[in-house]
Amino acid sequence: MIKPRSASERDLYELVEEFFRSGFQTDNPLITEAVRRMLAAGGKRLRPRITLLAAEALGGDASEHLPLAAYMELIHVATLIHDDVVDGAQTRRGVNATAVDFGNRISVLAGDYLFAWIFKNVTETYPPPIPNILSAALAAICDGEVLQLRAMGNLDLPFDDYVEIVQKKTATLFAASAECGAICGGGGVGVRALREFGMHYGIAFQMMDDLLDMTSDENTLGKPVGNDLRERKVTLPLIFALRSGNVTFRRYVEAFFTEKSDDGGSAIAELIGRIGQLGGFDETREAMHTYVERAKLALGGLGPIDSGAREELASLADRLISNS
Amino acid sequence: MIKPRSASERDLYELVEEFFRSGFQTDNPLITEAVRRMLAAGGKRLRPRITLLAAEALGGDASEHLPLAAYMELIHVATLIHDDVVDGAQTRRGVNATAVDFGNRISVLAGDYLFAWIFKNVTETYPPPIPNILSAALAAICDGEVLQLRAMGNLDLPFDDYVEIVQKKTATLFAASAECGAICGGGGVGVRALREFGMHYGIAFQMMDDLLDMTSDENTLGKPVGNDLRERKVTLPLIFALRSGNVTFRRYVEAFFTEKSDDGGSAIAELIGRIGQLGGFDETREAMHTYVERAKLALGGLGPIDSGAREELASLADRLISNS
Repeated sequence: MIKPRSASERDLYELVEEFFRSGFQTDNPLITEAVRRMLAAGGKRLRPRITLLAAEALGGDASEHLPLAAYMELIHVATLIHDDVVDGAQTRRGVNATAVDFGNRISVLAGDYLFAWIFKNVTETYPPPIPNILSAALAAICDGEVLQLRAMGNLDLPFDDYVEIVQKKTATLFAASAECGAICGGGGVGVRALREFGMHYGIAFQMMDDLLDMTSDENTLGKPVGNDLRERKVTLPLIFALRSGNVTFRRYVEAFFTEKSDDGGSAIAELIGRIGQLGGFDETREAMHTYVERAKLALGGLGPIDSGAREELASLADRLISNS
Repeated sequence: MIKPRSASERDLYELVEEFFRSGFQTDNPLITEAVRRMLAAGGKRLRPRITLLAAEALGGDASEHLPLAAYMELIHVATLIHDDVVDGAQTRRGVNATAVDFGNRISVLAGDYLFAWIFKNVTETYPPPIPNILSAALAAICDGEVLQLRAMGNLDLPFDDYVEIVQKKTATLFAASAECGAICGGGGVGVRALREFGMHYGIAFQMMDDLLDMTSDENTLGKPVGNDLRERKVTLPLIFALRSGNVTFRRYVEAFFTEKSDDGGSAIAELIGRIGQLGGFDETREAMHTYVERAKLALGGLGPIDSGAREELASLADRLISNS
């Protein structure tokens, strides 16, 4: 469950929202509309908030870095638009996926255009190494997604390989969000610490996402429960449950993945129940805890100076645990 | 028909090919393979050749700008990979489309990764404004393709709107190829002239492509004749034929586009025949001629200095006419 935001968080969230409402427009009206609709469907704007907090943590003023923060969210949005095309997803954040309303052609083009539009603007407005950090992050996301596709249905996926995939497909963009905010906010020795925060935060975030796919409800998720299992994704709770060595469970998972049965959800519910019984949820929470602690530890690299922004970053990380 | 290349052209072509064979590798083996296969299927490498010639025209050495030239071709390749996904194309350049061999998911991701990989490398290696020119070109391509989708089946598409679409979806990348080569080859007043050359060349190139779709054969095209008409694209020969004001013809086209019939090709053959009879091919050749002349005129901006590269650019433009 998403808890109510604190006052200062709400401020950053509102700043980002206001920027999207009033400041986001591409040269192509149809693409602008598709992106606006995706933005209006919700999202916690975690990436731009981390950019703004990182900028503030190094002495910058959040309101000066709104476009940069917005680009981080827009890269995420562009990848979601393409994800929904390749997954044939019907809904996203509880509303129709872009591909459902606009068709696959427009969706692929809208994602491509958005990538190009972001890089066009970033290369016009921001000095090196910002454009390079952003493009490297996008390359990592795609690389991670290809690795994930290849790992589908692999019941022997090692934990380290899982972390590599998650680092690439999810955490690198959080790391880039923090790093770019840090550079533009003031730079210096704190940049590395904030990038590291973003990377650990992002890994913990994906672990939470994996967990919620099994423990939350369709209403909160905006998509069916057990979607990852339905797509034969080997996520962390499943990896941990398989590590228990329970042979009956492994055979059950093998049969589930082979038959690709979709019987209205009862097989999924049964599988999720078994994963929980074998400790998959608890161990995932422990792993999350480890990465949340690493993220907070990384903030130590900011030196002895305390700031509201630093506290908020730590509190964002803690919230991953309390939300799951 | 593609005529045999001259010795110096062959050199540039071979330089580019050799670079792709030995110098192209991404961090993701599956994506590298998908791109290599697309490259191996052929292509005239016009964009990189124009980059290298533009560099030479301003005093540069082609062999020093091979990576830059290769990025131009790779942007084109990435857009082709995505085009084939959204069009559901079976073949490309006579071999299976990437989506057929690798699936839609990998194809969308491979295109995205390639865009990101190119920008990552370009921002690492080339100073402003090169990264900006490339991302602006990609934005224009996507913008143009969305405009083209919206113009589908529009029998009243004005010639100027057609040129705007073609300029965005095709010519801007030729213009960027020339401009980037020119900047890296030496820069100065010749840059603008070479960009202009690329833009006019690109417009003429797309007109030739439109024409060959109706006048060539499946073997040469690597895809079925009349493919544009089958996709309800309103291309230049059709626009000119419609401008004849022949009411019977217009009704015939309306019926063809409405029924979307695919009767093995005889309706397409009939439609193509009528377009030719109404002057669609001749007028397209005239329009091409105009843009080829404009491209060659732009080379006048290079000043009084003649060079082999300048002559080759002019001859590339002339070849568009003799090839169609």
